[in-house]
Amino acid sequence: MRMVRVQQGGQARWGELSGDEIHFVDGLGGARTGEGVPLAGAALLPPAEPTKIVCVGRNYLDHIRELGNDSGDLPREPGLFLKGPNALAEPGGTVDRPDWTQNFHFEGELALVIGRRAAHLSPETALAHVAGYTCGLDLTARDLQKTDLQWFRAKAADRFCPLGPWMETELDPADLRVQTRVNGETKQDSRTSLMIFNVVDILTYVTRFVTLEPGDVVLTGTPEGVGPLQSGDTVEVEVEGIGTLTTHIG
Amino acid sequence: MRMVRVQQGGQARWGELSGDEIHFVDGLGGARTGEGVPLAGAALLPPAEPTKIVCVGRNYLDHIRELGNDSGDLPREPGLFLKGPNALAEPGGTVDRPDWTQNFHFEGELALVIGRRAAHLSPETALAHVAGYTCGLDLTARDLQKTDLQWFRAKAADRFCPLGPWMETELDPADLRVQTRVNGETKQDSRTSLMIFNVVDILTYVTRFVTLEPGDVVLTGTPEGVGPLQSGDTVEVEVEGIGTLTTHIG
Repeated sequence: MRMVRVQQGGQARWGELSGDEIHFVDGLGGARTGEGVPLAGAALLPPAEPTKIVCVGRNYLDHIRELGNDSGDLPREPGLFLKGPNALAEPGGTVDRPDWTQNFHFEGELALVIGRRAAHLSPETALAHVAGYTCGLDLTARDLQKTDLQWFRAKAADRFCPLGPWMETELDPADLRVQTRVNGETKQDSRTSLMIFNVVDILTYVTRFVTLEPGDVVLTGTPEGVGPLQSGDTVEVEVEGIGTLTTHIG
Repeated sequence: MRMVRVQQGGQARWGELSGDEIHFVDGLGGARTGEGVPLAGAALLPPAEPTKIVCVGRNYLDHIRELGNDSGDLPREPGLFLKGPNALAEPGGTVDRPDWTQNFHFEGELALVIGRRAAHLSPETALAHVAGYTCGLDLTARDLQKTDLQWFRAKAADRFCPLGPWMETELDPADLRVQTRVNGETKQDSRTSLMIFNVVDILTYVTRFVTLEPGDVVLTGTPEGVGPLQSGDTVEVEVEGIGTLTTHIG
């Protein structure tokens, strides 16, 4: 099932996507209300209402190598960082290129949305705490990653996390193709099976330290092929079995 | 005015503290309801409901020097990092010493609570966006700050941010004494006038990149004297004009 979040009549509503039609439901997990709108023209919102966005850095070996961070050994534990809810941006939206970075990068990723409060998860039950999967664009001020104390401006600035277009609730995340295109040209093309830490590894590790709440988002890391964005660019992140998240750079 | 948040009858309620009595109000900023409870025995909650907690690192020169991070120059911009709402812990509460750090440190700080949505603040209007001030304890896994990719486990783990005991709404933050005691012994004793970046500097800088929402918390950095905590310790953070935040280490 594809769950869509839509801005309608001054409020945010969840709906089920069926073909080209959105059927509104009585809250996420609730029954259909009988109302609906066509997908075409609907004002989509990020398909999650997180209290925090937990991100994995350096989770594909090829991406570690392209950034020159390859010390010879694979990371022994996931490297994690945070974005706040201020970072969310809607699918199909425009994110202005900040004037305070000289190297504004795209990173396409598989994203998870948490469905149930999750602490100290076991590998056996981890996936049962995921409400669904969507596409994430981890926008990054690459130049400030090295110069700032932590990745605050570099990763957590306003609208640095476009998310969508919807949440797919029935999906096996083990081996999905992840592609990023800029102005139609393929820049990233990999598979989630090439992650160093898979979705279960990430969830069991994160929840040893940090409790995840319903609606929280986990970005699972980006493969090789990251690069700079300019004003006027259009970025598409496509994850197999989900769909395509489109973001315009203003 | 001192605004207290209290757990009562299964819900969180705001009240005004007057002497030893809490007078409940109809939401933060609302009128008194006529109901009240004594402060003694009330189950206090962190006096804020943040969407994110923005923290300043290395904001007192003496603390930079004690950690050996003094490269000779003062930081030219505030160094920032995030904790999520999962990090909050209530005043008077117990925080268990994690078994995954060998060097669990206290950092006492002045904390701000945001009252109005704040983006691109000017120095003239910055303080008008602060609802009030409270005491924060920035718990830190010192050993993991150096070994992890970012300060996620080191700073943002569950209950790593005790906050309280209440929010003081009328206070000039420019020159307040900040003290931290462990088991009654003074470990940190400084003044907010010794910050490298003062409260106005921090707010104008943060809101260039990140929009702050009502209830968001800003921790302003810690002075020298940080050190390790053991199970059984009691930590008190006292900020002049506010009060004392007590945390027990379990």
